[in-house]
Amino acid sequence: MLQGLMQNQPLLISSLIDFAQRHHGDAEIVSRRVEGDIHRYTYKDVARRSHQAARALDALQLKFSDRVATLAWNGYRHLELYYGVSGSGRVLHTINPRLHPDQIAWIANHAEDQVLCFDLSFLPLVQAVHAKCTSIKHYIALCDADKLPEGSGIPGLCSYESWLAPHAPEYEWPSFDENSASSMCYTSGTTGHPKAALYSHRSSVLHAYATALPDVMCLSARDSVLPVVPMFHVNAWGIPYSAALTGCKLVFPGPAMDGKSIFELIEAEGVTFAAGVPTVWQMMLGHMQANGLKFSRLNRTVIGGSACPPAMIHAFQEDYGVEVLHAWGMTEMSPLGTLCTLKNKHLSMSKEEQMKIRLKQGRAIYGMDMKIVGEDGKEIVWDGKAYGDLHVKGPWIIAEYFKGEGGNPLVDGWFPTGDVATIDADGYMQITDRSKDVIKSGGEWISSIDIENIAVAHPAVAMAACIGVKHPKWDERPILAVVKKPGAEVTREELIKFYEGKTAKWQIPDDVVFVNAIALGATGKMLKTRLREMLKDYTLPAH
Amino acid sequence: MLQGLMQNQPLLISSLIDFAQRHHGDAEIVSRRVEGDIHRYTYKDVARRSHQAARALDALQLKFSDRVATLAWNGYRHLELYYGVSGSGRVLHTINPRLHPDQIAWIANHAEDQVLCFDLSFLPLVQAVHAKCTSIKHYIALCDADKLPEGSGIPGLCSYESWLAPHAPEYEWPSFDENSASSMCYTSGTTGHPKAALYSHRSSVLHAYATALPDVMCLSARDSVLPVVPMFHVNAWGIPYSAALTGCKLVFPGPAMDGKSIFELIEAEGVTFAAGVPTVWQMMLGHMQANGLKFSRLNRTVIGGSACPPAMIHAFQEDYGVEVLHAWGMTEMSPLGTLCTLKNKHLSMSKEEQMKIRLKQGRAIYGMDMKIVGEDGKEIVWDGKAYGDLHVKGPWIIAEYFKGEGGNPLVDGWFPTGDVATIDADGYMQITDRSKDVIKSGGEWISSIDIENIAVAHPAVAMAACIGVKHPKWDERPILAVVKKPGAEVTREELIKFYEGKTAKWQIPDDVVFVNAIALGATGKMLKTRLREMLKDYTLPAH
Repeated sequence: MLQGLMQNQPLLISSLIDFAQRHHGDAEIVSRRVEGDIHRYTYKDVARRSHQAARALDALQLKFSDRVATLAWNGYRHLELYYGVSGSGRVLHTINPRLHPDQIAWIANHAEDQVLCFDLSFLPLVQAVHAKCTSIKHYIALCDADKLPEGSGIPGLCSYESWLAPHAPEYEWPSFDENSASSMCYTSGTTGHPKAALYSHRSSVLHAYATALPDVMCLSARDSVLPVVPMFHVNAWGIPYSAALTGCKLVFPGPAMDGKSIFELIEAEGVTFAAGVPTVWQMMLGHMQANGLKFSRLNRTVIGGSACPPAMIHAFQEDYGVEVLHAWGMTEMSPLGTLCTLKNKHLSMSKEEQMKIRLKQGRAIYGMDMKIVGEDGKEIVWDGKAYGDLHVKGPWIIAEYFKGEGGNPLVDGWFPTGDVATIDADGYMQITDRSKDVIKSGGEWISSIDIENIAVAHPAVAMAACIGVKHPKWDERPILAVVKKPGAEVTREELIKFYEGKTAKWQIPDDVVFVNAIALGATGKMLKTRLREMLKDYTLPAH
Repeated sequence: MLQGLMQNQPLLISSLIDFAQRHHGDAEIVSRRVEGDIHRYTYKDVARRSHQAARALDALQLKFSDRVATLAWNGYRHLELYYGVSGSGRVLHTINPRLHPDQIAWIANHAEDQVLCFDLSFLPLVQAVHAKCTSIKHYIALCDADKLPEGSGIPGLCSYESWLAPHAPEYEWPSFDENSASSMCYTSGTTGHPKAALYSHRSSVLHAYATALPDVMCLSARDSVLPVVPMFHVNAWGIPYSAALTGCKLVFPGPAMDGKSIFELIEAEGVTFAAGVPTVWQMMLGHMQANGLKFSRLNRTVIGGSACPPAMIHAFQEDYGVEVLHAWGMTEMSPLGTLCTLKNKHLSMSKEEQMKIRLKQGRAIYGMDMKIVGEDGKEIVWDGKAYGDLHVKGPWIIAEYFKGEGGNPLVDGWFPTGDVATIDADGYMQITDRSKDVIKSGGEWISSIDIENIAVAHPAVAMAACIGVKHPKWDERPILAVVKKPGAEVTREELIKFYEGKTAKWQIPDDVVFVNAIALGATGKMLKTRLREMLKDYTLPAH
């Protein structure tokens, strides 16, 4: 066998920040801080301070692959840890602060975290859990020395700035096997304990290449990029890596996720591209509509995390001239798998026809592949109508969970996503439901998401969740739980009538239940398990 | 050490065509054939026929890593071999038909080619060399069975179509080490024997990811791409791979490289992006100017292979609205290393200021790094003025040549390119010369390229080459060899006067020699060695 004779250079996360500091040294990183002010510096500074962080970890005598946890917003210090921790060979464990404190303690112990770095917003949380986190030896508050709270009760608490200060800003990143673990993220499992995806340097770099492509996030050195998606969950869709790969300007929102703050940051920093989940955009569009505001430079946004309501895609595009790219991914997928951009042959279509495509979750990104399979495990035809369980494979998709939790998740080498989807002849995938949420009525499947999307288009509906309830004849029938907008009124009958002509008759919910709130999970998704629990004594109205 | 727990999937060239046929199955591949007609089919067809080619190679009992050579234009059959040969584990050896026949025989023997596939344009060439190619066992003419020439004298000559025909269009690509050799290309060394770069599957896939990025060729599924750069040399800048990675439409010019044919193909196939060397574009612009033509969809072009004259960049941008992206690379670099796109901070500059940047060869593509070093081997400051030898490293840059020819080429792990360059504070590199062409006058260096660029801006000059000649006092002094445009007249004195105000006085050539032609090498570069040989008895005029 003949080996190619190319240079042997591992794909390491450290090479991303090396590249950015060498070739885009003065490109800006702008952060709204927990303190409320705006902090700005450059990739050169990120590199220098991540070198200091690496030295500080060496000084704590952390070994290769030791876990360093963060509880932090999107900001420059978090970015320094992304590079300082992974670059020096340790594993960055980003913790979702929206998890229940017991769950946070559980995952910190499961991950065997040695260090926890946290924004002061999360001081009460850390105070509540630190006694239960038995592996953590060092607590670092991401603040200046003079902001360090006294009498916190957290043993050895140190400010990040005084932790970095003694160390020189030069560091020679170690070179090692690109398959080494670089970072980890626990899934917000709605049942059982969370399970962790353990990313590698190789998977992170390949994901960064792939997601910066023109048909994905299309990142260039001419962009100013706002990741609203959190760095504490699936690495903000990899933007901390892909940004360095392209040398774009980075804008971090910190904790201020309200519509006004996000809008102002977009305008002040000439943001061209933003990535986020629908809930945040809903707040921002609300603020803009209320105040008659427009964007000056924002031209595209990637929306994912949960299915984006068609009305939002429409508002962004028609009212604000912002191209909306629907995306789909999972914690287990680093996270991006598909993105919805048009093909050459779609360019001559009408806007309405294009919109039908844009509502789908999109096409596979080169590197990952997908298929839909039936209950017999056989691949199902790509006709945009037949649906089945969505399976994926690729170098940035997990092979197993950390510590083998849950056993071997793969089926014939493919990862079953737990989503039910269609794929059309052009390769555009559309999630019809989570496999556990799909409603099986009379041998046919009803997509709970489709039913919810119709409901939220009603002017009086703030939030809607569709679940299946047992039915003696049809096995299951859909009912709709609805949270009304403040001050708005709508009746059960009006809502059921609202479905007429919008979906097949047998898919229309049998009942509407008005509730005060629908609980959301740590990543903003509706907790339907909670809803099912709440409605366990519910019985369908007689017809 | 903790390994990441991601799927282990090697980066193989076969996965590119798998992806394209699955997710962009009906995207078009359009080829102008040697026969003169236009052939069109899809990625699905490429996949099916590359499967047939793989089976045909199996039938010839070719082993893993065996070399399969091509002498072919850019076209669909060549594309099928790119995938069929490399995908099945063999090594594609693209031969430059512009090399001297003796050199072609030499490299075919050096590579130990087993099979040679050739376009009928090259039949006389194959007839001339086949007796000397001792390793080649099978000759395949890239044509239909009924086009196969009779009495060619080439033993066992078979038509490509009858070679494929018996084989089924399904094939399961083998999986193997991504560092396996995939293809090879010999450099057109102006001295000594050619040396070969041996690319790997890994290097080819990483190069494909990197070069499709928005700051490089910016390839998407909305593009229609015309690689004028030949597939017989450095894999047409990797476009056969990056096109499949993005699912763009591909348009192949075949042998018709004249201005009229290229222009017509661009218009007929809605080409949005074209890549080529300056000489081809010169012909096309000439045709367009003469006929008052404009482009309808072409919006950008990457120009490389040799430094692009400023006048051409200007004409493309100002007269035709086509963005010109200056690129730089080498056979030893797969080939792309830098590309010239602007940064965020340049967008507010005037067109004139932007043009100064666009004239440079551009910024490093993530994955490769570069530096300039002085005669002491120490890195030189990036100020856009200081120049030194350009060194590069990265996973798609060679570590050594095939069979160890020329020994270890690396210096401290970096590949010395043989170019002299400056790098400015923003990381924009500009080639000032080939290190062997730079003229050393009085302890200072004069860039032969700078001197030539001034000359070709003169309306009477068709081609100009600047070389150094020995000088008793200054060590070397520049003289200019000039080919006049047909019917144009200009004197030595006029040309020397033309330099006034355009460069430092001491850099102005001491003499102008008018010649009928300047010989070009196999990749279109001026053969200055030939010119030096021709002018070896030349003496400088007395001042």
